[in-house]
Amino acid sequence: MSDFSLQLTDAAKKIENEFDSAVKCHSDSYLSLREAMLYSLKIGGKRIRPIMLLEFFKLCGGNDNAAINFAVALEMIHTYSLIHDDLPCMDDDDFRRGKPACHKAFGEANAVLAGDALLTEAFGFAAKTQGVKPENIVKAIGVLSKFSGVNGMIGGQIIDIAIEGKKVDADVLKEMYLLKTGALIKAAAKIGCILADREDLSVHAEKFAENIGLAFQIVDDILDVCGDEATLGKPVNSDAKNEKNTFAVLFGVEKCKTIVNELTNSAIDELKYFNADTTFLTELALYLAGRKF
Amino acid sequence: MSDFSLQLTDAAKKIENEFDSAVKCHSDSYLSLREAMLYSLKIGGKRIRPIMLLEFFKLCGGNDNAAINFAVALEMIHTYSLIHDDLPCMDDDDFRRGKPACHKAFGEANAVLAGDALLTEAFGFAAKTQGVKPENIVKAIGVLSKFSGVNGMIGGQIIDIAIEGKKVDADVLKEMYLLKTGALIKAAAKIGCILADREDLSVHAEKFAENIGLAFQIVDDILDVCGDEATLGKPVNSDAKNEKNTFAVLFGVEKCKTIVNELTNSAIDELKYFNADTTFLTELALYLAGRKF
Repeated sequence: MSDFSLQLTDAAKKIENEFDSAVKCHSDSYLSLREAMLYSLKIGGKRIRPIMLLEFFKLCGGNDNAAINFAVALEMIHTYSLIHDDLPCMDDDDFRRGKPACHKAFGEANAVLAGDALLTEAFGFAAKTQGVKPENIVKAIGVLSKFSGVNGMIGGQIIDIAIEGKKVDADVLKEMYLLKTGALIKAAAKIGCILADREDLSVHAEKFAENIGLAFQIVDDILDVCGDEATLGKPVNSDAKNEKNTFAVLFGVEKCKTIVNELTNSAIDELKYFNADTTFLTELALYLAGRKF
Repeated sequence: MSDFSLQLTDAAKKIENEFDSAVKCHSDSYLSLREAMLYSLKIGGKRIRPIMLLEFFKLCGGNDNAAINFAVALEMIHTYSLIHDDLPCMDDDDFRRGKPACHKAFGEANAVLAGDALLTEAFGFAAKTQGVKPENIVKAIGVLSKFSGVNGMIGGQIIDIAIEGKKVDADVLKEMYLLKTGALIKAAAKIGCILADREDLSVHAEKFAENIGLAFQIVDDILDVCGDEATLGKPVNSDAKNEKNTFAVLFGVEKCKTIVNELTNSAIDELKYFNADTTFLTELALYLAGRKF
């Protein structure tokens, strides 16, 4: 493995090591709830959001392990959103990362409640942060809520449901991407700066995050056209066939590749404002932009 | 109306006046989400939890309107829990307070997301609290999460689902009541003290809340046996017929009335530790214990 891959794996492990202590259960009567929560937390993923939060915290001069609770909280929120997205009344997906979705493994009622509990406990775990000024904890909790809420991730999910089966223009699609997946990535970057008491830098962190978040999503659209079936886990070109709204369907693959490159370069350009080693974040941006095409 | 009834109505209005500003929506693209959230917030209710929070805050010497955001947040969390409880995969209730449940009015996917959004925004609204020490805001957010989470309301809901159709003893039933409805009532009392910087008094506030929360629940059980059908909105004695676990089914009505009186007296007894006018909370305890039997 390359240095970057090793760093990425190590950083992910650091987050995953916290899951058990983030979800405590005081009675055997509802132990099954904890089981469902941990099942979904541990089902896999690159842990990009928490890794980015910790990295911006470090870049901004943050000390030691003080941001770890917020990093884990972010992954808990990401995980709850996937559990609820998979529900029969939402995307109705039976599988998540090749394993049974939470509602297939634990039943629908437990999946709704496991999602609710992950979201609820995320804020509690974040509030247990040590070694950060209380006013910055309050500010960061506000950001966590804002970017996961009505005007963030959930708003994006509502748009996604509303445009299903309808032809929309690039502006609507971009708004959906920026909210549905982009908002939590932006929250990661912004919270990292706030916890390190460098909110003044968060505008650059947010621009970085917004650009790589959007690039990441467009790469996903490109992969649907150019990827191979085995990697995708679904037939090639299924988006176009299903009349799904994607950048690739709207603009074609070549134009999309250009957009991804521009977004990635703009993202990396924002890192110059940080007076520290930004190699890891630069490689992360290139990695997210370059997934196999 | 009595003085107490007037006070109760005024206090409820104070909370309800904040709902519109607690749920802001920045784009027309997901305005329907706000609509579903406000529909459920405004569907009615006595607003007991937020009223109790504000009252304990005042008793502890809290100033002005500083606790209002937490009070509203508590009602947002209570409301989300009702939306999710009513879902087809949970209690499958088509009506809530005589009106179509959120998922009947807005569809299931929107109801899941409206619940998620109320929960998410509750923490954000709480974090916007002004005029309270930041460390107390952090502490109160921790309490809000703890009492609504795994070891609070959601744990209680899991027990409720698990014991459906099974005979259980009073201990299990009590654990369920204390968590499912009791936890948020306790949170209200505790948070009121914390925000007023009087955490030292919260043990008494919590005991008050725990006792009246349990009494309130047992009164509900009694009403199922002794109430009239029109008030209940369901046939009398339906709990026993449905083999539902209730205190009334386990102990009989007379014993339950004794328990309610003991719990209410114990609750009121805790108020002596507060060096202020506790008339309103005393009347509230008697009111909750005395609902028509």
